Amino acid sequence: MTLHGYWRSSAAWRVRIALALKSIPADQVSHHLRRGEQRAPDYLRLNPQGLVPALETPQGVLTQSLAIIEWLDETHPAPPLLPGDPAQRARIRAAALVIAAETHPLQNLLVLKRLREYGVDQEGVQAWARDVNATGLAALAALTADNPGPFLFGAAPTLADLCLVPQLYNARRFGVPDLPPRLLAAEAACLALPAFADTAPERQPDAE
Amino acid sequence: MTLHGYWRSSAAWRVRIALALKSIPADQVSHHLRRGEQRAPDYLRLNPQGLVPALETPQGVLTQSLAIIEWLDETHPAPPLLPGDPAQRARIRAAALVIAAETHPLQNLLVLKRLREYGVDQEGVQAWARDVNATGLAALAALTADNPGPFLFGAAPTLADLCLVPQLYNARRFGVPDLPPRLLAAEAACLALPAFADTAPERQPDAE
Repeated sequence: MTLHGYWRSSAAWRVRIALALKSIPADQVSHHLRRGEQRAPDYLRLNPQGLVPALETPQGVLTQSLAIIEWLDETHPAPPLLPGDPAQRARIRAAALVIAAETHPLQNLLVLKRLREYGVDQEGVQAWARDVNATGLAALAALTADNPGPFLFGAAPTLADLCLVPQLYNARRFGVPDLPPRLLAAEAACLALPAFADTAPERQPDAE
Repeated sequence: MTLHGYWRSSAAWRVRIALALKSIPADQVSHHLRRGEQRAPDYLRLNPQGLVPALETPQGVLTQSLAIIEWLDETHPAPPLLPGDPAQRARIRAAALVIAAETHPLQNLLVLKRLREYGVDQEGVQAWARDVNATGLAALAALTADNPGPFLFGAAPTLADLCLVPQLYNARRFGVPDLPPRLLAAEAACLALPAFADTAPERQPDAE
């Protein structure tokens, strides 16, 4: 399989973690997002949306990080990223969506560029990014406050942790103050695992 | 079960469709979003994120529309909203996420309010909402262009159609021109079904 990504894409990092946790070998192809390489005709033939990540699989190209990770979990079940109990699966998916649907899409490169186009100045764009990160992470902390640790949902990392760790990386880039201790504790448990630490942006071959 | 929603919330509409397709009875409680009722202390105890939809179930409160719908599909499998084949499931989930993660969160009430706070004027806010709807719907049309109809993924509605129909409703509210014919055809097939038509915003008891 081949993962199309970019070192600093937090959605691509989620997929790198899933592949690593499940010990699934995959080639990696980098597309430099700031230079617009994800809009090159060859890549658009692969993923008409022109975004990373995309995973080339024997069953075709798959896109959208959460959809890719659910596919990996269904086709390579060990270790599971979602438990068997439907209600617990729903809670973990909801936590993942707080980040993947309500936080990250509001602060990705495309949206920050769009904000500038709509007249928000650089300081405003930075404040916006801090603001949406702080709001999303506070919601995630509230949703997971009563769970046992060390991970967001107990003794093993789940889909929610795969979303958390890259988002905290973004939050620090944007200078979000006072990150929730519950989330930092889960992050520390994650980063003690090579699947999280070795897939971090700065450790990718295309890191600048 | 009790669904907490709002007539015009497109995320709540997705869940209403799923309940109706599966003939699952549920009480409905409306929270007036423009009046901020979703921030009332009683509701925050139920859903600390202060958003709709939330579904009260015998297994506790579930949040985030896609997580709720996946739970409904796992616990009430007929008719299925995702097929059995993992790659096809991934494609349908990706299509749903194009709307639920990359389109709707960029044009919901909270974000439009935030744009005003960051100095974008009313005309700019409307243009932003049109813009993100047009971009997201074009991506969905590209991703599903080669699929058989009449629905987005063939002969029966799936999770992707549950996201499509409420988003087209939003797109029209914001005046998006030239909606993609492939999507309009799928919408027509959906709205011929009572589960989609009877759950439309204007047909809800709290509609204004």
